[in-house]
Amino acid sequence: MTEGKECYGWAARDSSGVLEPFTFTRRPTGPNDVTFRVTHCGMCHAELIFCLDKNGHFPMVPGHEVAGVVTEVGSNVTKFKIGDHVGVGTFVRSCLNCETCKDDMQQVCSKVVWTYNGVDWDGTVTAGGYSNCMVVDQEHVLSIPEGMPLAEAAPLLCAGITVYSPMMRHGMNKAGQTLGVVGLGGLGHLAVKFGKAFGMKVTVLSTSESKKEEALTVLGADAFVNTSDPAQLEAARMTIHNIVDTVPVHHPLDVYLPLLKLKGTIVLVGFPHEPLQFTAYNLHPGLRSISGSVTGSIAETQEMLEFCAKNNVLPIIETVDIKDCNENLKRMKEKDVRYRFVIDVEHTLTRT
Amino acid sequence: MTEGKECYGWAARDSSGVLEPFTFTRRPTGPNDVTFRVTHCGMCHAELIFCLDKNGHFPMVPGHEVAGVVTEVGSNVTKFKIGDHVGVGTFVRSCLNCETCKDDMQQVCSKVVWTYNGVDWDGTVTAGGYSNCMVVDQEHVLSIPEGMPLAEAAPLLCAGITVYSPMMRHGMNKAGQTLGVVGLGGLGHLAVKFGKAFGMKVTVLSTSESKKEEALTVLGADAFVNTSDPAQLEAARMTIHNIVDTVPVHHPLDVYLPLLKLKGTIVLVGFPHEPLQFTAYNLHPGLRSISGSVTGSIAETQEMLEFCAKNNVLPIIETVDIKDCNENLKRMKEKDVRYRFVIDVEHTLTRT
Repeated sequence: MTEGKECYGWAARDSSGVLEPFTFTRRPTGPNDVTFRVTHCGMCHAELIFCLDKNGHFPMVPGHEVAGVVTEVGSNVTKFKIGDHVGVGTFVRSCLNCETCKDDMQQVCSKVVWTYNGVDWDGTVTAGGYSNCMVVDQEHVLSIPEGMPLAEAAPLLCAGITVYSPMMRHGMNKAGQTLGVVGLGGLGHLAVKFGKAFGMKVTVLSTSESKKEEALTVLGADAFVNTSDPAQLEAARMTIHNIVDTVPVHHPLDVYLPLLKLKGTIVLVGFPHEPLQFTAYNLHPGLRSISGSVTGSIAETQEMLEFCAKNNVLPIIETVDIKDCNENLKRMKEKDVRYRFVIDVEHTLTRT
Repeated sequence: MTEGKECYGWAARDSSGVLEPFTFTRRPTGPNDVTFRVTHCGMCHAELIFCLDKNGHFPMVPGHEVAGVVTEVGSNVTKFKIGDHVGVGTFVRSCLNCETCKDDMQQVCSKVVWTYNGVDWDGTVTAGGYSNCMVVDQEHVLSIPEGMPLAEAAPLLCAGITVYSPMMRHGMNKAGQTLGVVGLGGLGHLAVKFGKAFGMKVTVLSTSESKKEEALTVLGADAFVNTSDPAQLEAARMTIHNIVDTVPVHHPLDVYLPLLKLKGTIVLVGFPHEPLQFTAYNLHPGLRSISGSVTGSIAETQEMLEFCAKNNVLPIIETVDIKDCNENLKRMKEKDVRYRFVIDVEHTLTRT
């Protein structure tokens, strides 16, 4: 490799997970690479896992909801030009040749390289969007539609696609049908918005009555079920076609399964560490399914961005200063965020 | 109701579950009814549950894999005539008018009446096929194809349809694809046979090496994985398109999920009492699903019978004397059956 590109950002030095300013090198723009100035980066729950992982690759520059403006393109790049608005999600490389990739599931290609804390094919450790610029193979760069604000585009690249992909795969996009959403965080609030954009009746399922007003007014959900109330659960039995469950910690599936209509699916997109449980009686007689999903493919992500642009589906965000990232990670851990922090990299990240 | 029809069979008097000879009355053949002489009745695992249920309706005449010959038809009956070979599965009534019935899921109609231990719409308790004759609404009677032996037909009506229905629903009938089968009992051995008839590569998954020879030779499975052997499990990772899991007791789904290819489904048809567990890590990255199912609809069952007749898919049975039913229930509990007991009602049941 020829001389690298000097970059700067914030990194966790070790698994204490505390982020601090950090300078590092990226590869020069290769023939197939797109280099872009990072303007915004969403803060994802993944940071609370990877930055604290004692097996992680440190120093770790996090961030996999990255949006910016192209500053340089390689000689083979045909899809992008300088000045284009682009983004990168959870992965920056996949083989594009295997059955999995060809079947449009690059996110689970066996050779996938995660956007940060990953080991690229050349052995270098990947660094994410909590930094001033990125260099990414053109096939793994998304085009952000004209007019879509870059700050709001960023969270679509992980939180958005994580709910959009399984919703499309399981037919949770049928106007008039009912969609349940469990967990009203970064992912859940986007699931509500997608559901409404698809013309569905959206029911928010929450253990907390305090979410009701927000769900019905700000997010535009049609109904709210307080799942701590047996009477409300009973009234909601077999009323919901499908459910998107975004809860990342252990929770009882037997509360939600009976709410599904016959042949309904609950798709889980959170990654609880502990095993999840269900009873056959709540699954079998309903001919129901429990499905899992992780992010989405390149084509699905691009399709989602176009859909969002056309239908004005955007996350509700709080734009934050990169200097406050440690404090904001703490707030995320305490669920004190409505609904996604997006770092204003463009205006707050400075070389130190 | 006018005078009833005197019948005889074997019944459990109470939840001790011990069966003994019993005489009882069925309704006379109504305008829409088909009355048939029972020739054979399969012995199902359900008997080990219902006959021991202290909330059951006793005396209980079990049996919901019933085959026989029509002896009388009501004035409105157009589908059957005297002498026809017919069968009845797990239910004898459904409303046929609701959304569920119209969507071909009569087995989970809210007004379904089980073939035995059910309460019919007129308040009478239903009695099953451990008896000399049955009177059943024509819409809930199956036609047994010409040439299919009645003894072998009987187990298809519960064990057969219980695996056939979800296999069809989840696309587990694609020639060339791999089907995994967990649990090599009455249901499992039929799943293997259906898989082979569909032109699939069938892998039997078992904790017991002793099942291997039988699976590969007698049943014609293509492969066998001893799931107690970590090396075999590792070698089988991501090799199976879908799995039919027939185990009726608690078992670890995390053993089987990693064997599924991307987007694979494990469909559970056993009814373990205790909650089942799985970890997100084995479900999500594979974009996998866990589904449940119960028996099948009238149309599906008829379709299955035609398929079995055409493709010579028949259960391996042991024909037994009704006098031995208590001993045989005990053997079933001990899994000492290859693969289904079928009571030769025609030749062994006598009026006492």
